[in-house]
Amino acid sequence: MVKELREKSGAGMMDCKAALAATGGDLEKALDELRSKGLAAAKKRSSRVTREGAIDSYIHAGGRIGVLVEVGCETDFVARSDQFKEFTHDLAMQVAAANPLWVTRDEVPAEVVEREKAVYAEQAKGKPENVVEKIVGGKLEKFFVEVCLMEQPFVKDTEKSVERLRTDLVGVVGENIEVRRFARFQLGETQEG
Amino acid sequence: MVKELREKSGAGMMDCKAALAATGGDLEKALDELRSKGLAAAKKRSSRVTREGAIDSYIHAGGRIGVLVEVGCETDFVARSDQFKEFTHDLAMQVAAANPLWVTRDEVPAEVVEREKAVYAEQAKGKPENVVEKIVGGKLEKFFVEVCLMEQPFVKDTEKSVERLRTDLVGVVGENIEVRRFARFQLGETQEG
Repeated sequence: MVKELREKSGAGMMDCKAALAATGGDLEKALDELRSKGLAAAKKRSSRVTREGAIDSYIHAGGRIGVLVEVGCETDFVARSDQFKEFTHDLAMQVAAANPLWVTRDEVPAEVVEREKAVYAEQAKGKPENVVEKIVGGKLEKFFVEVCLMEQPFVKDTEKSVERLRTDLVGVVGENIEVRRFARFQLGETQEG
Repeated sequence: MVKELREKSGAGMMDCKAALAATGGDLEKALDELRSKGLAAAKKRSSRVTREGAIDSYIHAGGRIGVLVEVGCETDFVARSDQFKEFTHDLAMQVAAANPLWVTRDEVPAEVVEREKAVYAEQAKGKPENVVEKIVGGKLEKFFVEVCLMEQPFVKDTEKSVERLRTDLVGVVGENIEVRRFARFQLGETQEG
């Protein structure tokens, strides 16, 4: 049902879960709930081209961790706005603190997903097939929330996801906002020994 | 001869060329010249482990270009020094301005080198074999100087290479300094259209 709501609304997984919980599992009401919060509207905007934007950086722990992020928006006006700058800065801090590996779950390579699933299935071995399936599905969701930037709980307010932070900004500035990529360097991580 | 001097001294190509020019092509004198400048001594230090260091960033053109660099040194003391910080900052600016693709020529993939050589050989086709070889070798050197960070002329003083900037710092701080990696984001470069 969360999946169906995600497809219908285009909102993030955590938002859909919350909406379903708040409406006692009523899909249409949950959809209205998302719309009223401006989360479903974000879907329409997300197809609009983001040609402007900014690169931001964040250096943590006296130079032991460094992050670059690229965020796109539609106009230079928004790119220069304080809200946008705050978002890119929060995002860079998020990457430094929570060490995501990909921006969205779509970017996780298929072989990584397969390997995770095999491990979870092995751990649940002996249980009925439908139970194993459920366990694997649940653990995979947790994995995505851990390693995908947009699904991570926002470090400065763990009640909302980073994706929610993005849709909040979309609601405020009225433009599509796209988190394009990030790089994260940790001192010595490429060294042997 | 430049190659031989590089191997004997461990100094950068531009420094070896300059030393040979200054000594009228006398290899041993050129080696002494490099030693007197502390450029050959840098060789010995380069095997020492760099466990400390720093990540630095640079944002250019109002957020349209962003750079991360990681530089290693041997002690935290040097990592905190003004000279080291100036070096990492200059390095990040260099990457932003001169857009290198690799740190050293050793990192350039063999297939890239082969493709370049094939293009240069095609351009020189019809000439005697030894001439073609010379042309290909010369153009390949120019290619490395263009795309390898350490071989690029330093943007703030194009008389010296970035490698020379590094060995100068080695001479000042008395520690091995290692430019480990960089990342460079340019706004919109991953976008289609």
